[in-house]
Amino acid sequence: MSRPSPIGALSASRLLTIDGATVGSLVGASEAIELAATALMKTSSATAVQDVRRTLDLPGEPGTCLSLMYASLGAGARFGAKVQSVFPANFRSGLPSHQGGVLLFEAYGGRPVAFIDAHAITGIRTAAASSVATRALARPEACRLAVLGYGEQAERHIASLALVRPITHIRVWGRDPGKAARFAEAQCARGFHTEPVPNARDAVRDADIVCTVTSSSTPVLQGEWLPSGCHVNAVGASIPALREIDLNCVIRSRIWVDYMPMAMSAASDIYEPLANGLLEPSRLVGEIGAVLNGACAGRTEAGEITLFRSLGVPAQDIELADYIYCKARDLGLGTEINM
Amino acid sequence: MSRPSPIGALSASRLLTIDGATVGSLVGASEAIELAATALMKTSSATAVQDVRRTLDLPGEPGTCLSLMYASLGAGARFGAKVQSVFPANFRSGLPSHQGGVLLFEAYGGRPVAFIDAHAITGIRTAAASSVATRALARPEACRLAVLGYGEQAERHIASLALVRPITHIRVWGRDPGKAARFAEAQCARGFHTEPVPNARDAVRDADIVCTVTSSSTPVLQGEWLPSGCHVNAVGASIPALREIDLNCVIRSRIWVDYMPMAMSAASDIYEPLANGLLEPSRLVGEIGAVLNGACAGRTEAGEITLFRSLGVPAQDIELADYIYCKARDLGLGTEINM
Repeated sequence: MSRPSPIGALSASRLLTIDGATVGSLVGASEAIELAATALMKTSSATAVQDVRRTLDLPGEPGTCLSLMYASLGAGARFGAKVQSVFPANFRSGLPSHQGGVLLFEAYGGRPVAFIDAHAITGIRTAAASSVATRALARPEACRLAVLGYGEQAERHIASLALVRPITHIRVWGRDPGKAARFAEAQCARGFHTEPVPNARDAVRDADIVCTVTSSSTPVLQGEWLPSGCHVNAVGASIPALREIDLNCVIRSRIWVDYMPMAMSAASDIYEPLANGLLEPSRLVGEIGAVLNGACAGRTEAGEITLFRSLGVPAQDIELADYIYCKARDLGLGTEINM
Repeated sequence: MSRPSPIGALSASRLLTIDGATVGSLVGASEAIELAATALMKTSSATAVQDVRRTLDLPGEPGTCLSLMYASLGAGARFGAKVQSVFPANFRSGLPSHQGGVLLFEAYGGRPVAFIDAHAITGIRTAAASSVATRALARPEACRLAVLGYGEQAERHIASLALVRPITHIRVWGRDPGKAARFAEAQCARGFHTEPVPNARDAVRDADIVCTVTSSSTPVLQGEWLPSGCHVNAVGASIPALREIDLNCVIRSRIWVDYMPMAMSAASDIYEPLANGLLEPSRLVGEIGAVLNGACAGRTEAGEITLFRSLGVPAQDIELADYIYCKARDLGLGTEINM
């Protein structure tokens, strides 16, 4: 007996790889909003099959982890997984905090067809989801936007929200006043009238729409500051260890989420006050996709505060990846490799 | 307010992609055994941080799913995830039942560094783990091998086990006698004296080592057939819906697993009889890595039947991916792409 050799039934197949720059060139902000709406509706109708985000904690500051989100877009539709490292400390050194890829598979036979930069997908779909919620929940005339945070999502939110509401005034606040000033300057240069303010309270005063897009583990937004009738997108806290909004934000608002199982497993700012009786269950109205599907109410009064608590839905990533794959394939973009 | 544009902090980085053929050329069966031993020891010492396999059920025959396995090899070591589609029905059409990739990340900063064909990694590490267990548990003189199943793992197990025991006689059984005959012929051509037999009982009679490498959902191996002193590697049933071995196999054996949380969540042939009192808990001895670490007993008598119940450990995939990445990088193999 001899000659063992590492031979198996290896069959080469072609995989289309699509980098972040190509993703950015293929999806405009308004297409991204419609794709997010589609994915959120599939989520709330259970057409999409998915799981909560799975994470593997890694050494480092709170929130450092490997993150996995995976979904099928329905029977006969493609499915896939987004695998990302999450390193909040990277932000300080100018590196992306989220890095990885989406692997997309064919429904029949399960062949992997595309590997797409995850950072670009996450960036696009997160702002798009906030716009879907804002379009559904904010007052139609909302024009004053407050942004807490000055990272990539701050920029993407401004560009995306301007497509769904007539935004005329933007205030930005962040921990580092110098960075906030430079961010505001860059936004002005892109045509968005943006003013840096020295504290979060000043940013929120009189706002019609408030976005929290930080990686803070302690609240940056206090509910007592919120003007009546405003809409809040709370976006940055994607794991239980992070917390951008205080208890008053939650108590004073009617609340919608993107995907209920995810909110109940990752949004500690919601599930903790629910569990200890500080938040009345009826204040948590439902999923935003159910509002779009007509199965759940939206805003009922001009004066109420609406809160969209965004965690990020696996089906959003896969819906967007599916669109990007088809478009790149049809246009001959991306790089094909043998696998 | 105008000119929203989809611009973000996109930073290109280089990702090394490594196809299945390259993986096969980089890892010999004996290296694979040492890498599997390392990963199983890290698993049992909790040096590796990992989770049980996560799956998303998909339409199709039992076991059709998206499968995710992820691990960190320890503080300061690389981490990653294997994402695969599992389509058992593909086997009938000659396609791989498992298809996907392993995405590997640097420990510091979390940059993705490699994307490696998963089918090749799974193929290599699965047979290697059985060899690690066989080396630790089978009688030293074990020379008669029975293989139930004639797929890729049957072939890989023969090549790998021949490196750890002086295999001289091989019997193979599978549902289709014609396929079993062709498999045996191909093995003979590779220097492994292999005889096809018409039923599983004949294959197992007098065997020193028995491997079940099928995708059966009903037992193909009956414990009453097992000769005293034999060692069994039960490999094919990686999800609760699959079942290769009957209750007697489990009851008559002392049992080791690769990773206890995985066995308790996926090996229904073990956890069900434990739960209903049919299997004495002391028969489940521990993890094979603990035997290697000296923390757990191995075989204690020549006449006892030892059973290695293999589920597949995430750390094995990542340990192997890490080795392949380093070797490919150093040799200038693989294809670099921008992400």
